[in-house]
Amino acid sequence: MTTVGYVHGYSAHETRRLGDQADTLAQLLHAGTTYPAGSRVLEVGCGTGAQTVHLATSSPDAHFVAVDVSDASLAQARSRVAARAPWAQVDWVRADLHDLPFADAEFDHLFVCFVLEHLPDPARALAGLRRVLRPGGTVTVIEGDHGSALFHPDSSYAHAVIGHQVRLQSAAGGNALLGRQLQPLLTGADYADVVVEPRTMYADDTRPTLVDGFTRNTFIAMVESVRDEALAAGLTNRADWDRGIADLHRTAADGGTFLYTFFKAVAVNPGAGRPS
Amino acid sequence: MTTVGYVHGYSAHETRRLGDQADTLAQLLHAGTTYPAGSRVLEVGCGTGAQTVHLATSSPDAHFVAVDVSDASLAQARSRVAARAPWAQVDWVRADLHDLPFADAEFDHLFVCFVLEHLPDPARALAGLRRVLRPGGTVTVIEGDHGSALFHPDSSYAHAVIGHQVRLQSAAGGNALLGRQLQPLLTGADYADVVVEPRTMYADDTRPTLVDGFTRNTFIAMVESVRDEALAAGLTNRADWDRGIADLHRTAADGGTFLYTFFKAVAVNPGAGRPS
Repeated sequence: MTTVGYVHGYSAHETRRLGDQADTLAQLLHAGTTYPAGSRVLEVGCGTGAQTVHLATSSPDAHFVAVDVSDASLAQARSRVAARAPWAQVDWVRADLHDLPFADAEFDHLFVCFVLEHLPDPARALAGLRRVLRPGGTVTVIEGDHGSALFHPDSSYAHAVIGHQVRLQSAAGGNALLGRQLQPLLTGADYADVVVEPRTMYADDTRPTLVDGFTRNTFIAMVESVRDEALAAGLTNRADWDRGIADLHRTAADGGTFLYTFFKAVAVNPGAGRPS
Repeated sequence: MTTVGYVHGYSAHETRRLGDQADTLAQLLHAGTTYPAGSRVLEVGCGTGAQTVHLATSSPDAHFVAVDVSDASLAQARSRVAARAPWAQVDWVRADLHDLPFADAEFDHLFVCFVLEHLPDPARALAGLRRVLRPGGTVTVIEGDHGSALFHPDSSYAHAVIGHQVRLQSAAGGNALLGRQLQPLLTGADYADVVVEPRTMYADDTRPTLVDGFTRNTFIAMVESVRDEALAAGLTNRADWDRGIADLHRTAADGGTFLYTFFKAVAVNPGAGRPS
């Protein structure tokens, strides 16, 4: 993650946003992910610990190693986990995921959530991570895909502001449309038994907690956070930007609906060589 | 359904396509829909009986009345159900859903699948249907939404051909982007306890049956079926059309992925007046 310019988690606002996001999404994304007591699990790119809390909650007796490239994020992650999952067994390690200070096959499982979307070469990252995973161990990868955003009332201005976020993430070396590629990426990196599932978040008037927690405080907040960058890059002007954001907020108002799909993949390290 | 020009189910090819679609999708769409023994269920717009077979399979002791505006479709539906669900109790009735020959509150439940998308005024249709539903009875509505189509490799040509299908359906008085509107539509038609769930179909190399049954034989076949109409309307030219279809087929080839979201709504008739 040293190789990209766009990394989450450096402002208080961002930290709160990522916390909100993790809380609302936790059940959707973490369902099905539990690790046996005593297993060694590497969380790659833990950021400020938003997912670490949920990993430790779902698997209280697993032993986690959480890696991030940023000392500041690790400090926040450590205090978040201490406050919200004090039982958690987590070793915090500052490292670049492309150059991990671990032995071959040292981990039983890998967990990689909202990380590949920021990497210029996610295929290379996945192939490299396989080195530290024991044969038969699993990798779990979770990514969103902004192309899945679907809402009522529809609005070309709203789609445009989402498009600006996609373009900026792409210019920074990432890919906000990566979810749909998880299966070919994992297969191409020589993982076996790849299973990808869509996990779809849907909010309307009948689910006010999701409208607030997801549509407003996660998705719209994420798009709004690139406003200055989008204007500075000349992708849009203030009037069009404001209209796009206002139209997104209409999808969170009475009679509005909002849908977004995450992709969750689990795959196995078949060991040396290509999978059979 | 007499009020629209675009109606499924008149050619042998279409009939086979809708049969394939129902088989592949049945588990996804019908999960959770079962009616008690002896209950009276109205299927509105049964077409060629693709869903009727699954309704009768999931609720073998319910009594169905299946309505369609087309005698030809009803004849096909009757023979399909006789062959595939011979135990089914179904009365077949030719009628316009806007002018149903039934008494007030005659049915315990209504089932309306892939019908509203063809109507110029789905809100009016839903409000009208409420007349024949007893207070406390449920309506189940299922619709797709072509805006949810997401695929790898991405292709602007592929999105364009999907857009042509959307435009033609719209010109015929329908709306291929209706799924996202089910909650406000049902609420606006004075139904209560509205619950909408996304039901997402996802296909990749690891799910060859879905790639074939859904991506190729349902979705791409549906788009391909409007080729002549799209060319005649001047929406596209042969080269661009062929490229769009070829790009869609790439999403069903090695390394391709395809995702589509249906919306399933269940709501209750609160009786006379507005819901509390």
